[in-house]
This record gives sequence, structure tokens and C-alpha cells, in this order.
Amino acid sequence: MKIFGIDPGLRLTGYACVEIDPPAGSHDGVAEPRLLDAGVIRLKAGGSVQERLLELERDLVGLLEEHGPAEVCVEKLYSHYERPTTAIIMGHARGVVLLAAHRAGASVTELAATEVKKSLTGFGHATKRQVQESVMAQCRLPELPSPPDVADAIAIALCAARRVSAPVM
Amino acid sequence: MKIFGIDPGLRLTGYACVEIDPPAGSHDGVAEPRLLDAGVIRLKAGGSVQERLLELERDLVGLLEEHGPAEVCVEKLYSHYERPTTAIIMGHARGVVLLAAHRAGASVTELAATEVKKSLTGFGHATKRQVQESVMAQCRLPELPSPPDVADAIAIALCAARRVSAPVM
Repeated sequence: MKIFGIDPGLRLTGYACVEIDPPAGSHDGVAEPRLLDAGVIRLKAGGSVQERLLELERDLVGLLEEHGPAEVCVEKLYSHYERPTTAIIMGHARGVVLLAAHRAGASVTELAATEVKKSLTGFGHATKRQVQESVMAQCRLPELPSPPDVADAIAIALCAARRVSAPVM
Repeated sequence: MKIFGIDPGLRLTGYACVEIDPPAGSHDGVAEPRLLDAGVIRLKAGGSVQERLLELERDLVGLLEEHGPAEVCVEKLYSHYERPTTAIIMGHARGVVLLAAHRAGASVTELAATEVKKSLTGFGHATKRQVQESVMAQCRLPELPSPPDVADAIAIALCAARRVSAPVM
């Protein structure tokens, strides 16, 4: 079963695809999710919002067709954004991500940022750097995943996958 | 030439289609835009965000195919929203509107809410009721356009059309 983690943005959208084996019905030897693909969709800095949204949609649809994930996970919205207008623009990209995921037949899930960070680093308010380092260690990557948007997407995908392979009792 | 005005939302999205004759090159007898269609797309209150976005996209694509507008106009974002989370959710719908409009080949334009209100009522901070009444009078409607989302969409479309037929010198 494949799970996508996506960190939406109108400049950079991070994505990651992980795979997990179906739950074995036992708590022994639960396999760790395997990272299959990760990267960022970079949108043209000079493009209009609608041009970028169309580019984002095309790239996403391509990735979703290639991997066929059963689940696409994004971060939950929280209520206190420092810059509301930037957050609304991010909302445009998030809307296109949810639309493309649902259209591709994936179930859409949301995880609080603090839950993702806690699952990866043990600390719900970890820095971007800590998340990058945990992702590098847990996926045995040769270098720090960069930009942080990729690390965030991998973190979301790993956290979502662990919830599936070891559901909360 | 047809112009759409859209007031995006995840519960109600107002839309209106107006038609104007091409500018005649003279200031005499500039024809007023004609209202061809207006209404709201009502999204299921119980549906998930992704379900509503998909429903919104389908309905919009249908309307855009039916009318083939050259331009789709929405309100500009402003920087002080009272409820940022609600505004981000509106951003999801706005993103899908911009995407669908651009994909349909329409040019996307934005007008400040104050400019739309001023163009319709003479006052940039008019109430929703004043906008509804101006729209009713100017489009010779038999009753107040309701809910206000339809009136807003008609107001946006009229304001955008007047800018085309009498461009700012």
C-alpha cells in the first residue's frame, strides 16, 4: 500500500511516496515504511496564481498516476497563521492538492503538524532542521533532504504510514 | 463577449455571466452589459472538503463549457480577514475556481471588493443589502437576488464588464 505525504505551496510543493506492507495482525516485526520517491514541484516564480495552479495540478496528476497511492496525507490547518494572506494563497494550492487526490481515488487524511513532528523527532515543536535530520536518519538518506519542504512531505508520509501499520488502539 | 463573475466559497459559490458588445470606438451609446445567467453552486454541507471541491469543479467546468466566457473575474484578496481559518478554506475554493477558469482558456482578472461596490452603488463600503438592491435595479430583476453570494457575483461581473466596455483612460 502506497501513501503520499504532500506539503502544499504555490512556490514549492513537497511530496513523498512511501510503501508499507499490509498489517500482519501481529505486533511483532511491524515493517517500517519504505521511501519510494520524494521531491518538490517548483512553480514558476513569475507566473500568475492560475498558471501555477495549473502547473501544480498537472505535475500532481502525473505523480498520482505513476504511483497510485491509496492515501494522500496533508497537514491539518491550524487557527493562528502569522500571515493570513500568505496562508490563503497556500490554501489555493492545498485546495488543488485535495481535489487532485480525491479525483485520483485516494483517501485524503490530515495530520496535525505537532503530531507529525512528535512522531518523527519525539518533540511536537521540533525545528525544520530537526525534522530534516530525523528524516535523513530514519530513511537512511546519504544527505539532508532539502529544501525543508521535501523533508516535511516525507515526515507526513512516514507518520501517516505508521498510523496505518500500527493503528491507534 | 461574455464575462463571468464568481464569488467562491465551500458552502455557496455565487456565479454570474454577463455579455457585452465589443467597444465601438466611440463614447456615445456604450451598451450596458446584459445578464445572461446567475446562480449559486450549493455544496453538500456534510461533505468533506475534497468532496466539495470536486463537486465545485464539476459544476464550474459545466458552466464554463456552456457559456465559454473570455474573462473570469473574482474579488482580490485583502490582508485583514477576521477569521483566517475560514479565509484559508475559502482559498481552497478560490484556487479551484482560478484553476478551472485558466484551464477553460478564460483570462482571470481580480477586482478589489471596494471597487466593485463603488462601481455598483457609488460607495466602496456598501452593505450586502445595498449591493443586492443595486443589482436588482441595474439588471431590472423582478426581486432581490438572493442569497447575497449571487448578488456579489453579478456585481463583480458587471464591474468587470464595464471596465472592458469603457476602459480606464
